[in-house]
Amino acid sequence: MYRTNTCGELRLADAGKEVTLSGWVQRVRKMGGMTFLDLRDRYGITQIVFNNDTDAALCEQANHLGREFVVQVTGLVAERTAKNPNLLTGDVEIIANSLKVLNASEVPPFTIEDESDGGDDLRMKYRYLDLRRNPVRRNLELRHRMTMEVRRYLDSKGFLEIETPMLVGSTPEGARDFVVPSRMNPGCFYALPQSPQTLKQLLMVSGMDRYFQIVKCFRDEDLRADRQPEFTQIDCEMSFVEQEDVISLFEGMAKHLFKELRGVELDGPFVRMPWSDAMKYYGSDKPDLRFEMKFVELMDILKGYGFAVFDNAAYIGGICAKGAANYTRKQLDQLTDFVKRPQIGAKGMVYARVEADGSVKSSVDKFYSQETLQKMKEAFGAEPGDLILILSGDDAMKTRKQLCELRLEMGNRLGLRDKNKFACLWVVDFPMFEWSEEEQRLMAMHHPFTHPKDEDIPMLDTDPASVRADAYDMVVNGVEVGGGSIRIHDSELQAKMFEILGFTPEKAQEQFGFLMNAFKYGAPPHGGLAYGLDRWVSLFAGLDSIRDCIAFPKNNSGRDVMLEAPAPLDQKQLDELQLELAPVEEKKS
Amino acid sequence: MYRTNTCGELRLADAGKEVTLSGWVQRVRKMGGMTFLDLRDRYGITQIVFNNDTDAALCEQANHLGREFVVQVTGLVAERTAKNPNLLTGDVEIIANSLKVLNASEVPPFTIEDESDGGDDLRMKYRYLDLRRNPVRRNLELRHRMTMEVRRYLDSKGFLEIETPMLVGSTPEGARDFVVPSRMNPGCFYALPQSPQTLKQLLMVSGMDRYFQIVKCFRDEDLRADRQPEFTQIDCEMSFVEQEDVISLFEGMAKHLFKELRGVELDGPFVRMPWSDAMKYYGSDKPDLRFEMKFVELMDILKGYGFAVFDNAAYIGGICAKGAANYTRKQLDQLTDFVKRPQIGAKGMVYARVEADGSVKSSVDKFYSQETLQKMKEAFGAEPGDLILILSGDDAMKTRKQLCELRLEMGNRLGLRDKNKFACLWVVDFPMFEWSEEEQRLMAMHHPFTHPKDEDIPMLDTDPASVRADAYDMVVNGVEVGGGSIRIHDSELQAKMFEILGFTPEKAQEQFGFLMNAFKYGAPPHGGLAYGLDRWVSLFAGLDSIRDCIAFPKNNSGRDVMLEAPAPLDQKQLDELQLELAPVEEKKS
Repeated sequence: MYRTNTCGELRLADAGKEVTLSGWVQRVRKMGGMTFLDLRDRYGITQIVFNNDTDAALCEQANHLGREFVVQVTGLVAERTAKNPNLLTGDVEIIANSLKVLNASEVPPFTIEDESDGGDDLRMKYRYLDLRRNPVRRNLELRHRMTMEVRRYLDSKGFLEIETPMLVGSTPEGARDFVVPSRMNPGCFYALPQSPQTLKQLLMVSGMDRYFQIVKCFRDEDLRADRQPEFTQIDCEMSFVEQEDVISLFEGMAKHLFKELRGVELDGPFVRMPWSDAMKYYGSDKPDLRFEMKFVELMDILKGYGFAVFDNAAYIGGICAKGAANYTRKQLDQLTDFVKRPQIGAKGMVYARVEADGSVKSSVDKFYSQETLQKMKEAFGAEPGDLILILSGDDAMKTRKQLCELRLEMGNRLGLRDKNKFACLWVVDFPMFEWSEEEQRLMAMHHPFTHPKDEDIPMLDTDPASVRADAYDMVVNGVEVGGGSIRIHDSELQAKMFEILGFTPEKAQEQFGFLMNAFKYGAPPHGGLAYGLDRWVSLFAGLDSIRDCIAFPKNNSGRDVMLEAPAPLDQKQLDELQLELAPVEEKKS
Repeated sequence: MYRTNTCGELRLADAGKEVTLSGWVQRVRKMGGMTFLDLRDRYGITQIVFNNDTDAALCEQANHLGREFVVQVTGLVAERTAKNPNLLTGDVEIIANSLKVLNASEVPPFTIEDESDGGDDLRMKYRYLDLRRNPVRRNLELRHRMTMEVRRYLDSKGFLEIETPMLVGSTPEGARDFVVPSRMNPGCFYALPQSPQTLKQLLMVSGMDRYFQIVKCFRDEDLRADRQPEFTQIDCEMSFVEQEDVISLFEGMAKHLFKELRGVELDGPFVRMPWSDAMKYYGSDKPDLRFEMKFVELMDILKGYGFAVFDNAAYIGGICAKGAANYTRKQLDQLTDFVKRPQIGAKGMVYARVEADGSVKSSVDKFYSQETLQKMKEAFGAEPGDLILILSGDDAMKTRKQLCELRLEMGNRLGLRDKNKFACLWVVDFPMFEWSEEEQRLMAMHHPFTHPKDEDIPMLDTDPASVRADAYDMVVNGVEVGGGSIRIHDSELQAKMFEILGFTPEKAQEQFGFLMNAFKYGAPPHGGLAYGLDRWVSLFAGLDSIRDCIAFPKNNSGRDVMLEAPAPLDQKQLDELQLELAPVEEKKS
């Protein structure tokens, strides 16, 4: 037996007991004739005392322990004279009578403390040491608690967790698949699922009624800062439901999770915002509603006064930053530089201050009368002390997105994006399609199985670009944590959808024949939703990146630097798969 | 709103309520002026009544419904005159006042009944229809309940569920990996994990203390009847434990599951049987202990009497089938044919009946005196009416395995393998290594991370083949449901193990360097276990195959016949991966 207790559980009531603890050496200090050892495990830290007067040999042994040695200690629990109120075990210490080194440790490449001196690369290479740090470990504990709560909640609502296969067929529509060559079927490949979308729809056809799965999904995409090639979804689907049923159930789950995991009670129903409003007022389909600062369109007010930039613009709009009129010229220049960064791409920024006397002082005063500026002030409901920031451009949607970035930046600067405050909403009524410049055709905004709004179905023939979908996203603090839709359950409507998306009937049959066939045998109306677990955990944990809520994440090149994967294969393995490498350089020569 | 209630929940107390139900048409019957519709969903069946006198048009509509149509019905709950005690809803029926067809259905290719007329291939192609059948759906419900209970149990014991990556590095040791070409790292491949073995050990190094995961694992092996290329493991690992700690915790979990899922109370501790005893008495490392019929070795008793088959044998052993002395010549011939099948490979079988008067009548009477046969009878403790069956051979281990098959066959024939009876045991003290004829070297019997028994460590240098391991398997009814071991946590011992297994230090470093490096930074003593979820669910469900407890299984060629996966890729996908097909036929020409 290695231990009677963990390093986190002894209290004053245990004083007098003989205990055995095992754990890692956090710290060893000599003070007077005593040696103090902080012994650490997942559950906490317990202080161990070695007395040079009582047992000099044992004390000497303790003095030679290095950081991160694994040791086993037996001793008596005693009340501390100097208690440590910061530790749950801080009322007691263990008077050691034996000490055994279970394993030595080399000096770790970075400190195992809440604030480590290890850089990102080092921490990832030695991730097993990084995970010993409290903040990282706590993220994984939170992730565990979250999935437990999700399962409890969905189980209580009659959902069945059903595993769908990981080795499926490749569907070139959408993002790129990771593929898996089949040795038993040479020349053939499985694909790893980007989501279990079609399989969960089949489960609805099979009458499973309420399905969920916490499941790994895969996308072979170029990785942006906060994407991983493998990620985890809370994937759900329900039969005999309308949008309202799905939204209300999953809003209930969100409230449950906020309460259980963060102790936050979210009152009242979440805001429902049509996608068109989200774009109009926030320039984003995932607006951060922790703060207001809504867009105000200024085309009517500011056009036609000789300021060419505005006169030629397809969109002029601004935001009002409460109390920021005291921004210095330097701060305003920083903001201008911010919006002109290539990632954002605005041409410039106009600003206007509301002075203490109510008058408006702007960077374009020479074009506008005070009367016009006052009209603008009223449009914002701006007050003395407020700062108005205006962008314009020849593409309304692009300019709105630039203004969105500016709004978020001002939110940051004004401290309006508190990580401990949560603003949840549903964005609804998404467009069914979006135009792809690259492909020169309409693409499904969510996916080809999304049900159009009943009242918009006639427009599928006449004006598909205007058709809205029964699709909804849950957004928290500007992060899309989940989304879903009511699905098509009619094989004819599904065929029409593939047609609009440019599939020939043969291609549609080849790729999704199994689903369209299934729909011929009594598919129920159904819909669902998928949450991104990684994003949601990092939101709860207050992290900026999803990486630190994943035990073994990959870097931006899709590499696991600890495992050194991916790596070249043995020739034998390639031969068995009947594959050859065909490097592009070689092909060209 | 599609329904106020499910098809499984209305009771007599609901009589008088107006309800709306949605579901599938199980059956439509006309009787007198009435039409009865059995409406089915996951939760049950409710009878709907249409009265031709009250609403002829509605009744006519109902008469035209086909099997598996999806319909919505509104009506009044009424007490049935002829109650159906076999249905939980059998006390009521719905007097319909409206009927809506939500989706039609073509005639399904097989009947959606408990006993279907669909063959295996058809059922798999239309698996979404097969899953509508009660027995198949119940297996998935059981699987869901099982994973919920496992998680609840392990959570209550302080285990954290931690997701390990699916895209890892390839480890050519052991079974074949499925590999995944990386587009971002051309020429490099990930592998799908055969198990998270090394990653969970790293989690122990990271101080997670108690880890579990219900996780998909992958093996690219030629598939036997009851294997799947992807399968699900309940994977567990604990720190600061000895074998006893692991066994007692997971025995507790097994008992909990038996109680919750099958209502079976397993009393007392499970039998612990050393591997050597399991082989000696049952010829198997997973003995079915639902019945006794232990092997008795007969070398001392039957050798040296001129019967050449026995005289030249390296092993002679038999079993005693209680009460089977009345087996006919034909039955005995069948048994002889059974053991001579190529899959079993025995040369022949000797039998002996114990007559009512206690005398023994054998098939080799001309070589043995009644005195010798009586000695043999005593060795078995055989009684009048018993049948003794004996095999021999020149390879003791092979002959024991043949005798094991005969024992199981006799167990089947005598009805001793009741699916509702459960015999659990731990097989312990496995050999560390087994000799591979193919590779002409010692291979790890479990895996290279298994800890040898402390007392056997000195033999690693002198007689490695005799070294036993701290390894254990849980066996239920002759099925290995799980197994594990205490792991090596010392990098030097691990290095020695790789040496014995024929790894050069470079090769060991290349493949397992990350683990051996991790061991240098304070690895705790640890051990764990993995259960095969598929096997365990099928055991609880009383299934002969794991296939029917998997929603979308693959066939013996690793194909999903519903999805038609795997399949050839588009050339564009191959180009992006910088791969070329290299069919073996082409290479030869």
